[in-house]
Amino acid sequence: MRTPSRHVMWDKLFHITRDRKVSYQRQLREMIVSAILDDKLPLELPLPSSRDLAAHLGIARNTVVLAYQQLMDEGYLVARERKGYFIDKSMLAGRVSVPSRHLEPESEPEWNKLLKLKPSEQLNINKPSDWKSYPYPFISGQLDPKLFPVADWRECVRQALSVSDIQDVTPDLVDTDDPLLLEQIQARILPRRGVWASREQILITMGAQQALYLLSDLLVGTDTRVGLENPGYADARNIFSLKSKNVIPLPVDEHGLIPGDAVNQCDLVFTTPSHQSPTTVTMPISRRQQLLDDAEKHDFLIIEDDYESEINFVGEPTPALKCLDNNNRVIYVGSLSKTLAPGLRLGYMVASPGLISEARSLRRLMVRHPPANNQRIVALFLSMGHHDSLIHRLSDTYQQRWHLMGEALNRHLPESTRIPSFGGTSYWVAAPEGLDTRELRNLALEEGILIEPGDVFFHDKNPPKHYFRLGYSAISADKIEPGIKKLAALIHRLL
Amino acid sequence: MRTPSRHVMWDKLFHITRDRKVSYQRQLREMIVSAILDDKLPLELPLPSSRDLAAHLGIARNTVVLAYQQLMDEGYLVARERKGYFIDKSMLAGRVSVPSRHLEPESEPEWNKLLKLKPSEQLNINKPSDWKSYPYPFISGQLDPKLFPVADWRECVRQALSVSDIQDVTPDLVDTDDPLLLEQIQARILPRRGVWASREQILITMGAQQALYLLSDLLVGTDTRVGLENPGYADARNIFSLKSKNVIPLPVDEHGLIPGDAVNQCDLVFTTPSHQSPTTVTMPISRRQQLLDDAEKHDFLIIEDDYESEINFVGEPTPALKCLDNNNRVIYVGSLSKTLAPGLRLGYMVASPGLISEARSLRRLMVRHPPANNQRIVALFLSMGHHDSLIHRLSDTYQQRWHLMGEALNRHLPESTRIPSFGGTSYWVAAPEGLDTRELRNLALEEGILIEPGDVFFHDKNPPKHYFRLGYSAISADKIEPGIKKLAALIHRLL
Repeated sequence: MRTPSRHVMWDKLFHITRDRKVSYQRQLREMIVSAILDDKLPLELPLPSSRDLAAHLGIARNTVVLAYQQLMDEGYLVARERKGYFIDKSMLAGRVSVPSRHLEPESEPEWNKLLKLKPSEQLNINKPSDWKSYPYPFISGQLDPKLFPVADWRECVRQALSVSDIQDVTPDLVDTDDPLLLEQIQARILPRRGVWASREQILITMGAQQALYLLSDLLVGTDTRVGLENPGYADARNIFSLKSKNVIPLPVDEHGLIPGDAVNQCDLVFTTPSHQSPTTVTMPISRRQQLLDDAEKHDFLIIEDDYESEINFVGEPTPALKCLDNNNRVIYVGSLSKTLAPGLRLGYMVASPGLISEARSLRRLMVRHPPANNQRIVALFLSMGHHDSLIHRLSDTYQQRWHLMGEALNRHLPESTRIPSFGGTSYWVAAPEGLDTRELRNLALEEGILIEPGDVFFHDKNPPKHYFRLGYSAISADKIEPGIKKLAALIHRLL
Repeated sequence: MRTPSRHVMWDKLFHITRDRKVSYQRQLREMIVSAILDDKLPLELPLPSSRDLAAHLGIARNTVVLAYQQLMDEGYLVARERKGYFIDKSMLAGRVSVPSRHLEPESEPEWNKLLKLKPSEQLNINKPSDWKSYPYPFISGQLDPKLFPVADWRECVRQALSVSDIQDVTPDLVDTDDPLLLEQIQARILPRRGVWASREQILITMGAQQALYLLSDLLVGTDTRVGLENPGYADARNIFSLKSKNVIPLPVDEHGLIPGDAVNQCDLVFTTPSHQSPTTVTMPISRRQQLLDDAEKHDFLIIEDDYESEINFVGEPTPALKCLDNNNRVIYVGSLSKTLAPGLRLGYMVASPGLISEARSLRRLMVRHPPANNQRIVALFLSMGHHDSLIHRLSDTYQQRWHLMGEALNRHLPESTRIPSFGGTSYWVAAPEGLDTRELRNLALEEGILIEPGDVFFHDKNPPKHYFRLGYSAISADKIEPGIKKLAALIHRLL
């Protein structure tokens, strides 16, 4: 039996937190494993008996017995007859034994000279990562946590834990995709947009973002003329600017990208016809047709980012450009980030098989493939109809918020104008000229209001400063009117 | 009540499979959802009563009632009093209504002219994706499914389904990492290798693969002299060749990469000191020190891919190059693909904060971040000690297989030589010269034996053809001796 004096050590290392959501057994296990791996326990002494440790921690003895048993099964502990449980030394084998050090390096390479790219110097949208702790988060790209389909998701995650699913998703898929997810994208997601594609025309990507990066690497050289909507998606500008010196801003109006000479001189045009980012306007079908005709006539390719196509409030949705494309000039890019969750990083790209096969080879070099377990879970989520039902709910919710936003803007900010929009998850607002929305952003932040200044969306050296974007995907309905009211007060103070 | 004649339609659409692992309720739900979304059901007719459908399918009525109820909750069905369940038309709103078409395009852009890169033309390792169905899979990079820690993994996945975890992992993390995973990599994984890093020195990546791609984009220009071990990792060659015309093959011997003039002329050197890929030899500490001294003296950077460092059978593990690096010239790359599962695509990179911050900005553009849910699950897996215990078990298993492989090779293929190796998950074998292992691979395939011809690892125009790699991470112990025996018979037939 152990003498009481030996308890002192355990006193310091082991304690249970009663308000954690984690079970006592798990807490105990985590503490013992940490102490072993961090080398805080002497190898020659036994661990306290289950009776002593249970008494010391004030938990049931059986909890300790079970934790010890599991640690034995996994090789952390060995039982020696009449002596108790000891640490199995072999668990610490295979580890380099050098003293820990956090030394300052003696010298440092000249990174400034060595780096071929400095992406950190690009202008990009910045949102506080703790946006959830602000009362009025009028930001885009993040979803109100209450909208996430927790029960449906859990059901699919649990289901994907079957032995056969695990065996499907743990190996290296090299350059392939989960056939179940491919099938669901092909049969469930793309037809909503009027896009019918064979498997050789589809690649699963890490969000729409990776599709753009792959396309930039494959299709853009130093002199490639890449046309971008102005204002437009900042990440696209940053991706294409890494490769080309010829990034050309293309004007947009209340019908989106304007076809014409500026567009026709490009080699590659990036556009967001469903809901132009950031203005949210929709390109009418006649203009889509013209863009496609021009692409064939003037020999350019189109990247269609079908941004927020799912969220329409008025009338029939317009078919995707890709749906009308008879010449394989459109590369269609979509994602689950705006409906399911951006944190999962799942998207897809539809294009000519000749381009998809090169993108697949390049994806292999870049990341091999999107994680296979997530591909499987999302395939189940789609096959159960959860995604369609989610889009249905989201549309209702966003339409309600869109109304509330519109009313609040009319009431509190009548002097600001906004481009009329009938979908998406944000308003694009022009404050009176002279107002610097970067200054407004900083003031608003102090009052717990998050807004996105518009300058970063313009591909100009001196962008206009009086635009801003107000998102309503992250903010809950009851915060909208009070938030706009507070924001209006700030704007009036600034003017 | 419905008349029996109306059943005919359901007869064709709905049927239950008794041997599927999926519950009847889920099968039923999936069938009804598919029929609705694929527009196969008339909107004006009610669904069959739960009693009729249950009788038709031969399942309990309650199963049908529950499925209908769930579909009502999700908006697929509406109940009309005394009339039954109908499809809710609004679920089909928001979908483009164009006829399905799989038309051949009228014309096709000239991809051959438009593509700046053609990664599909690169030589790379090719393994059949159905490798599990072969009796003797002597391949690398895939893990025997029996070695995956199913119970531990399930425990962590379920735990990560708590509301607070879901709220942490569904948002866009933009350019950040899960702090819990960063902490575990910092405290649990890197110290095993003698590497002590601050958080600003760590980036989580989509496997080691993405780290190489990021580094190539950041540090390699057209003229950058990139040194690669020869033979060496084919994916690294393919990644760096996309950017540089100056990829320099560097000779290796039984102690790995040979320091000297060839190395010293490089700007950037890629090496696998723990277990050289593909030869599996370990670089001794004296040579590591020399490489570091040379890097400082001749001003080059080193990418250390700490490939299979976890798997050592003999003696103390050698500390990572990064552990000995006083000048921040080493960029350390590691992954969980060789221990946990390659399909999850999780790795990490350790380097100077100045380089990591640029890599982080570039990762944002490339994929934003590795999926947040997987980061959290793996953080839990590490914090519970499951990963250390897994490495312990894997080392035992691989050591046993390594012995069996060695004995079988000695017995059946005494005329082949292999570089002595004391770790890793494969043998690098030189067959008698004159034997073309690509031919051997094809013959072996027909007998259910998978091997990897060695030519693809050489960065030469005319690589030697008589090397091959025999992996033992995917093949189970009882298949080793019979597999080698069969393979030897083939080799003797070819010679």
